Amino acid sequence: MIKEKYTIKDIAQMAGVSKGTVDRVLHKRGKVSKNAFEKVDKVLKEIDYKPNPIARNLKRNKTYSIHVLLPDPDNDPYWIPANEGVLEASDQFTPFGIIIRKYFYDPRNKSSFVEHSQEAIKSRPDVLLMAPIFENESQLVLKRCSETKIPVVLFNNHINCFKEQIFIGQDLKQSGRVAASLMEKIIGRNDEIAIIHINKEPHMQSKENGFIEFFTEKSDGDHIMVSKTFNSAEENIFKHEVSQFIKDNPKINAFFVTNSKAYMLVEAFQDLKKDDSSIIGYDLLKPNIKYLKQGNIKFLIHQKPKRQAFLSVNYLAEHFLFGKPLPAQEFLPIDIITTENAHYYL
Amino acid sequence: MIKEKYTIKDIAQMAGVSKGTVDRVLHKRGKVSKNAFEKVDKVLKEIDYKPNPIARNLKRNKTYSIHVLLPDPDNDPYWIPANEGVLEASDQFTPFGIIIRKYFYDPRNKSSFVEHSQEAIKSRPDVLLMAPIFENESQLVLKRCSETKIPVVLFNNHINCFKEQIFIGQDLKQSGRVAASLMEKIIGRNDEIAIIHINKEPHMQSKENGFIEFFTEKSDGDHIMVSKTFNSAEENIFKHEVSQFIKDNPKINAFFVTNSKAYMLVEAFQDLKKDDSSIIGYDLLKPNIKYLKQGNIKFLIHQKPKRQAFLSVNYLAEHFLFGKPLPAQEFLPIDIITTENAHYYL
Repeated sequence: MIKEKYTIKDIAQMAGVSKGTVDRVLHKRGKVSKNAFEKVDKVLKEIDYKPNPIARNLKRNKTYSIHVLLPDPDNDPYWIPANEGVLEASDQFTPFGIIIRKYFYDPRNKSSFVEHSQEAIKSRPDVLLMAPIFENESQLVLKRCSETKIPVVLFNNHINCFKEQIFIGQDLKQSGRVAASLMEKIIGRNDEIAIIHINKEPHMQSKENGFIEFFTEKSDGDHIMVSKTFNSAEENIFKHEVSQFIKDNPKINAFFVTNSKAYMLVEAFQDLKKDDSSIIGYDLLKPNIKYLKQGNIKFLIHQKPKRQAFLSVNYLAEHFLFGKPLPAQEFLPIDIITTENAHYYL
Repeated sequence: MIKEKYTIKDIAQMAGVSKGTVDRVLHKRGKVSKNAFEKVDKVLKEIDYKPNPIARNLKRNKTYSIHVLLPDPDNDPYWIPANEGVLEASDQFTPFGIIIRKYFYDPRNKSSFVEHSQEAIKSRPDVLLMAPIFENESQLVLKRCSETKIPVVLFNNHINCFKEQIFIGQDLKQSGRVAASLMEKIIGRNDEIAIIHINKEPHMQSKENGFIEFFTEKSDGDHIMVSKTFNSAEENIFKHEVSQFIKDNPKINAFFVTNSKAYMLVEAFQDLKKDDSSIIGYDLLKPNIKYLKQGNIKFLIHQKPKRQAFLSVNYLAEHFLFGKPLPAQEFLPIDIITTENAHYYL
């Protein structure tokens, strides 16, 4: 059946009632006789009438505030696209009465997070959208918001013990499994593998768990795995520690870097004149893309930070404006990036 | 600056003019004195006013017809998600006055395509959206539409000689390069590779070209490549021909299948008790996913048929309804699928 567009006038004519009656039925307001209601209802069913939620809601004239708490892109370039995602959603929904305010914190500094989260809560938004990094401090924020009845939506990382929170991002354990499924295809049967954390944040453990789980389930091949955490704050110390690790583990030539800092490992290897290793990492940062194209990094996994941030704001805005339900959690696709498809995701 | 939502009443008060004047300025209709115009204009700039294109256009009450010509999903399951994409867009835009009519043709049968294309043209839609398969016949359709001034938008495949047509789909040559970049990582330095076409359609040559180009550019490793076309209409003949090919080319154990029929190659190999080969194919058909999970297929490339179809209708609908410009071409991301991320794309 082909659906045409029917106007209120059309429906009124078909039902043999006034336009005002149709309008009252459609918007469930005012008095309508049972007889008139049934006539209109019959026509609506016949024509498979679907209300236009946007037109319906534009009449309201209310504003809603979404306050966004995220790491400062100036401190970690991973967050640049997330900030862009917030801006894009902001452009789209501001004309409809959604007010978005951002609070940047320094991801290297817990007290910066605490300070800006307090500011955000104090301004009493309709909802707080948060990318949490510090586990204990984030839990305090959640507790505070719960007390003051400010709903919280998380994106990018989970905080484990608050399972009932709404979360939009990547399934981090599954993401580790994706990395493992790639690693399995590019290494030899008995190669040794290192799982490398650079400036480890709590949620990276989930990726390691998924990675190990995948290989544990496989019976073919037998891989020795080592997990190692580095701190990159002091470049010289970082490079020295990498050098020591390579000396201690000469047989390892496959590396899974659990965050956006695979390029740092490549650079440390270049100083050591170590090559011919298989590195899998995360995120489309410029130096990562460069080393992907040069072949130093075999695969990158794309965490879609822009999409995550955009979608989070989008869901909230549509929830406020059109009453759409919020998803309990939305796991975004885990995109696999190689030299030849990278540019589509940038 | 935080943007609040301003009503026409707010703007009128701020500019010191009537609501009617603001309305006339916003909608560029009726007479407004220069003085009043400047007052309103100044306020609009101050508040960074952005018109709401949806609200503005809802007042029009026109319908637009988009007729979609695509292969019958009953004849080739590749087209099931494309059909779903059209349906989804149809649900979204029908209430706004977009009428979508579908014409299915049998992708194995040129005269079926000709017949249904004539029917679609005869009904004089506002635009024809077409997934072309038969090159010469599709060119005749384009010619006919050009004569009768029906704009055409292509999705899924190009038709080479009509470069000025709007196209939404995958860059097929680049897609071949993506397959090659994956193949390079999973095979040995000097392995021999077969490029397999099953029921070859003209656009698959672009994938082969891209695949070969990638390896030609690489200096490391030296791969003998063979291109082979099979017809799968008669299962026995198909399996016999695959068997003969394997006998004639015993050293080949890497296979790039250029369309959604990689599962057929896997099944032919199973009959021959051939395994331990690297197969890369296309599309998330059920049997392909099954063999991906079993490890017979190493990677699948996802062509996003649902997204292609949805986006095509979406662009056209927004063009008609809101005057948005149409993209000359939109190349969708080339998604790489492995066992562990497949379910996100289904």
